[in-house]
Order: sequence, then C-alpha cells, then structure tokens
Amino acid sequence: MKKGNVTFVFEEPPVILEGAGIAGPKEGEGPLGKCFDQVWEDPMLGKKTWEEAESELQKKAVEAVLKKAGVTCGEIDCFFAGDLLGQIVASSFGLAAFHRPVFGLYGACSTMGESLILSAMCVDGGFAQKVMAVTSSHFASAERQFRFPLEYGNQRPLSATWTVTGSGAFIVAKPSGAHSDKMGKRWGRCPRITMATPGRIVDMGVRDSMNMGACMAPAACDTIEAHFRDTGTGPEDYDAVITGDLGYVGQDILTELMRKKGYAIDKVHMDCGIEIFDRESQDTHSGGSGCGCSAVVLASVILPRLMDGTWRKVLFVPTGALLSPISFNEGKSVPGIAHGVVIEAAK
Amino acid sequence: MKKGNVTFVFEEPPVILEGAGIAGPKEGEGPLGKCFDQVWEDPMLGKKTWEEAESELQKKAVEAVLKKAGVTCGEIDCFFAGDLLGQIVASSFGLAAFHRPVFGLYGACSTMGESLILSAMCVDGGFAQKVMAVTSSHFASAERQFRFPLEYGNQRPLSATWTVTGSGAFIVAKPSGAHSDKMGKRWGRCPRITMATPGRIVDMGVRDSMNMGACMAPAACDTIEAHFRDTGTGPEDYDAVITGDLGYVGQDILTELMRKKGYAIDKVHMDCGIEIFDRESQDTHSGGSGCGCSAVVLASVILPRLMDGTWRKVLFVPTGALLSPISFNEGKSVPGIAHGVVIEAAK
Repeated sequence: MKKGNVTFVFEEPPVILEGAGIAGPKEGEGPLGKCFDQVWEDPMLGKKTWEEAESELQKKAVEAVLKKAGVTCGEIDCFFAGDLLGQIVASSFGLAAFHRPVFGLYGACSTMGESLILSAMCVDGGFAQKVMAVTSSHFASAERQFRFPLEYGNQRPLSATWTVTGSGAFIVAKPSGAHSDKMGKRWGRCPRITMATPGRIVDMGVRDSMNMGACMAPAACDTIEAHFRDTGTGPEDYDAVITGDLGYVGQDILTELMRKKGYAIDKVHMDCGIEIFDRESQDTHSGGSGCGCSAVVLASVILPRLMDGTWRKVLFVPTGALLSPISFNEGKSVPGIAHGVVIEAAK
Repeated sequence: MKKGNVTFVFEEPPVILEGAGIAGPKEGEGPLGKCFDQVWEDPMLGKKTWEEAESELQKKAVEAVLKKAGVTCGEIDCFFAGDLLGQIVASSFGLAAFHRPVFGLYGACSTMGESLILSAMCVDGGFAQKVMAVTSSHFASAERQFRFPLEYGNQRPLSATWTVTGSGAFIVAKPSGAHSDKMGKRWGRCPRITMATPGRIVDMGVRDSMNMGACMAPAACDTIEAHFRDTGTGPEDYDAVITGDLGYVGQDILTELMRKKGYAIDKVHMDCGIEIFDRESQDTHSGGSGCGCSAVVLASVILPRLMDGTWRKVLFVPTGALLSPISFNEGKSVPGIAHGVVIEAAK
C-alpha cells in the first residue's frame, strides 16, 4: 500500500477457483433464476426455523462449491464468513460441521466484499493455499431481526429493498501450486482478485431503516472515489462498477454523488439488488438486498461473464448498512460501509 | 502453513507497537485496577445509552493508544474491530469518527484473538505498515443483549461470568521501516506476534447460556492442542497459556480436557476472566468475560510482563461462546471458538 492510499495491490493475484450460488424460491422466479446453482422451492430448506434455514443455505453453498471445484473440505485452510444476523449465528451454525478454522465477519451487506479481501490477503500473503469466502442472508430471518415479524404484515415503503434468500461460497486460491496439475485447464481461466479498497464507515445521519439505499450510497461513493484516486483509474477502465444492493433509490444517489466528484459512472454501473428481481412483476420496490444478494450475483452472473470473455475487469463493491435493532430503536443513524474488490479475467 | 496444519507462522513477526486498556468502575476496583490506562467512574461515560457508552470505550482506547505510541490516526492503514453486540454496533459507532478502513469482526469473546491474527496477517503479508486491533464489551449492554434487562434483577448462578466493561486497542506494525528512527529505542523492545492458530467452531451441545465456561472450554482445548501439534511444542515451551474468559468453571474443564490429551497445562495456565476480578469480594461468581476482558488484560498485564522480562513467550487464546438471543431462545446449543496467538518478547 502506498503512503496515504487505502488500496491493497496483490502481488500474485489470487484466483477465484470456483463459486456457487444457492437461492430461495422468489429469487428463482426472478430474471437470474436459471443462473443459480440451486434454487430451493422451500424457503425453510426443510428446517424448523428461518435461522436454521439460513445456516443450511451456507452449508449447501459450501458443499456445492467444493463439489464443483473438485476440492475436499480438508484442503480449505480457513473460512472467512458472515451474515446479517446478530452474532452471525447463521454462519456459526452453518459452518461448524466443516470443522475448519473460521474468521467470523460482520460488514452488513458488504460482507461479501470484506470476505473476498481478507481471503485474497490470506492467500497472497502466503498464509494459505485455499480459503473459503461465504456469506448468506434470508428474507424472513432478516425481517425478524431488523424490522417486523412477518405475521404483522406491515406495509413496505417504495424505498425499501427485499432481503435476498441466498448464499454464495467462493474458493480463493493461490494462482499456482501443487494443485494446478489436477485441475487442468480450468485453473488458467479463473478470474483473479488483483486489488482491493476496504471501506470506511460513512455516517451521513440518515435514520430511515426502510431506505437502505440512501444510507449506503455515500459509503459506496467514498470507496469508489478512493479506489479511483489510489489507482489513477476511472469508470472507463472498468467493464462494470458493481454495487451490492443500493437498489433503484441508492443507484440514483450514487450516480449523482459520483458526478459531483467528477466521475460519470452511469454507463458502467450495475447493482446486484436491481439485477436479481423483476421490477414490474416481483413487487420488491427498490430491489434486492442482503449479504446473499451480491454473493449469488457474483457466483451466477459476474464470474461467468469474466470467464466467457464478456468482461475483462470489474470493480465489485458490496455495500452495507450498519444498524442493529437496538441502535435503530435508540434513534441512532444508519452509517454505511462499502468494500471494493477488483476482479479481472485470466490473462 | 504446512499441509494439514492450521497454524500460521509469520516470517517477519509484526510487533505490538503499543496497547491501551480502558476499564469501567468495577474493573477499576479489582486486582488489576492500577494497571489500566484509564478507569471510568461513570459506567455511562457521559453518554445516554449503554451502547453509546461502549462505543465511547472503543474511541477512548484508540485515542489512548495513538497518544501513547506517538502515532497519528492517518498512519493507521486499517482497523480490525469487533464487539459482542448484534451487528457489532459498538464498533461501528465507536470507530466512524476515525475515518479509516474498518474490517468488522465477530468471534464473540474470542474477537481480540481474531483481530490480532488478521492484523498480523495484514502487516506480515505486506499490505500495511500499521493497523489497529480493537475490541470492547460492556456489562450492561451485554446483559440487555444476551440475558435480562438489569431492572429485572435476576439471580445469577455460580457458573455465570460477569461481562467486563472495557476496551483494549493495539497498534500492530511492521518490525522495521520508515518509522523506526522516530520511535527510537522502544521499537526494539516491542513484543512480537510470531505465530497464530485460528480456531474451529466446536459444538459439544451445551445449552446453558449461564455457563459460558463449559461452552468454550472444548474450543480452547481444540485450538491449544492443534497449536501444540502443529508446532511440536507443549506447555513447557510457554511461560503462560492464557485463555480469555473461561472463568473458574471453564478452567477446571480445560485442565481436565488437556490432561486427557496428554498435556499438563495447569502450571502455566492463566485466565483473563479469573485475573480481572477478586473472587471473594467482588461477587462475580465464575469470573469476568467479554471481548473487553482479554483485551484489557492483554494491554495491562500481558504486554507489560513481556516488556519487563517476566515472560519470554506466551500463547494467548481468547475464547468465545457463539450464541444470539434468537438462537438461544430457539433452543440451539452454544458452540465455542478460540483463536490462539503466540506473542514473544523482543529478542
């Protein structure tokens, strides 16, 4: 890291060896339905509680990515994992059975970015050969955690987003090593994590927990601007600048904030929360959100486009709103955070 | 990391440049009262809510360690921070004002270990010159989060621990570099983080949230045994093996579990939760606990003993109990996790 900068540059960029995205029924009916590795018709995944269902989503995602990559659980040196629930219990109960070291993370909906950065750092720093980055969210467990019990049937304002039921898991690995022979040709085609700009907490004083886009857009702007400044790049250097879950409301705010900073990102901006649901038919208002949103879109859309040559280089910026039921009820604002990760196609 | 191992070895061991421990009134009255950098008589720290008070503890700890080290906030490349509250709001609101990148962590009371490991990884991997590891807990915010409102006046069983009101902050830095001239002699005396064994989630099915020691002891055993195995060492190679907050109940269980594995750790075992309160006069039953417990004991006892020659090498193993109010109310068990860090005196 250069003096004054906040961007990490990975010397030997770790590869995302494989990813898997598991989604719930509503996500399966959306525009990306056919792209997910698994779509579960039962939002409970056969479990008794929503929280257990979310843990099961993580478990299924990890199992799926291990199978796709032909990697055993024992080869994973450690996990970087998180979710939205208090004390990240979805991760604790979802990952215990794998019996590998776990670094528990909380960055609200930005956690997918945080876990990819720390995974890449762990691998590029020479501490591990292969690690797992995994996050999840579940509509019903998140509503119970942050807003109202579903049975209450509250009305949702148009600025509200719909928490995605889903989990994405990714194996981040050294670009070369003992396993390259076994994996054969695919290894050379894997997208690489080349840089990362971890986010600062940005508190603009927004207090509306039903307008997460407005809470998070200033943080997304802060991270994207820091990244452009540190690296001497701009929107024209990326095939896409992809935020996590700003939704329609947050997208408008981000575009305007970036314009004021001198960057026109509208031509390359994409938001995972906007992509995952159909605006007209699915009644999700501002779009999708949650740790699982950017995770399943990364697995199902972003990585495939980096593999098939559609894109060469993207800036992936999962966005998080930092509140708890207690902080919100005590009248505190909702600060935002956004973690940026540059993912490039294989050379 | 060697194949099959889970222990990281740091090539150029990062130093803990400085630490600061801030504590509440009850902690100030305890056996370590005179060792803390600050003791606050007012458990609210002048704030309106307990959660705000906990955020203030983190802020004070960070300010104190920056001042002690003669380092500006701008020199800190990033923060690795966490606390016990849902969505780690004590950290989010405590650290926003520093406006540096933040990696939010959750490892329950093991978070001090997790943050030191990731800090050392970030520095030794070459991604940063100086980073901040900080955690906190507050008796009243934790009771509200996990158990009963204080006003309810519930009786505490003898197996219960008392959540420490406190925060510890530590600057982890490259052992050499541009700043060595400015810091002069002290730099060469700083303790170093030489190895780390991140923990696995261990679920023995214990369901008693008033007996955290029993929930966490098996995880502490798992990590300590893995560390001894990976490094070919034993209790005799350490001046102290220091767990976070097992308390008296958990200490007995750990000693017995380790004995069954063939290790007699009783002669070198120390527990931060046992050290921080007086058993006879302070009525805390099994001892102290919380993210802040191991943090303030590290700052106020462990680092000074590594600086003054009392100890040469310790294995510091903060321990965490992974539960949330929701998981507990849904009848789930309380899994444990423990992260091990080897801290050695300067050569």
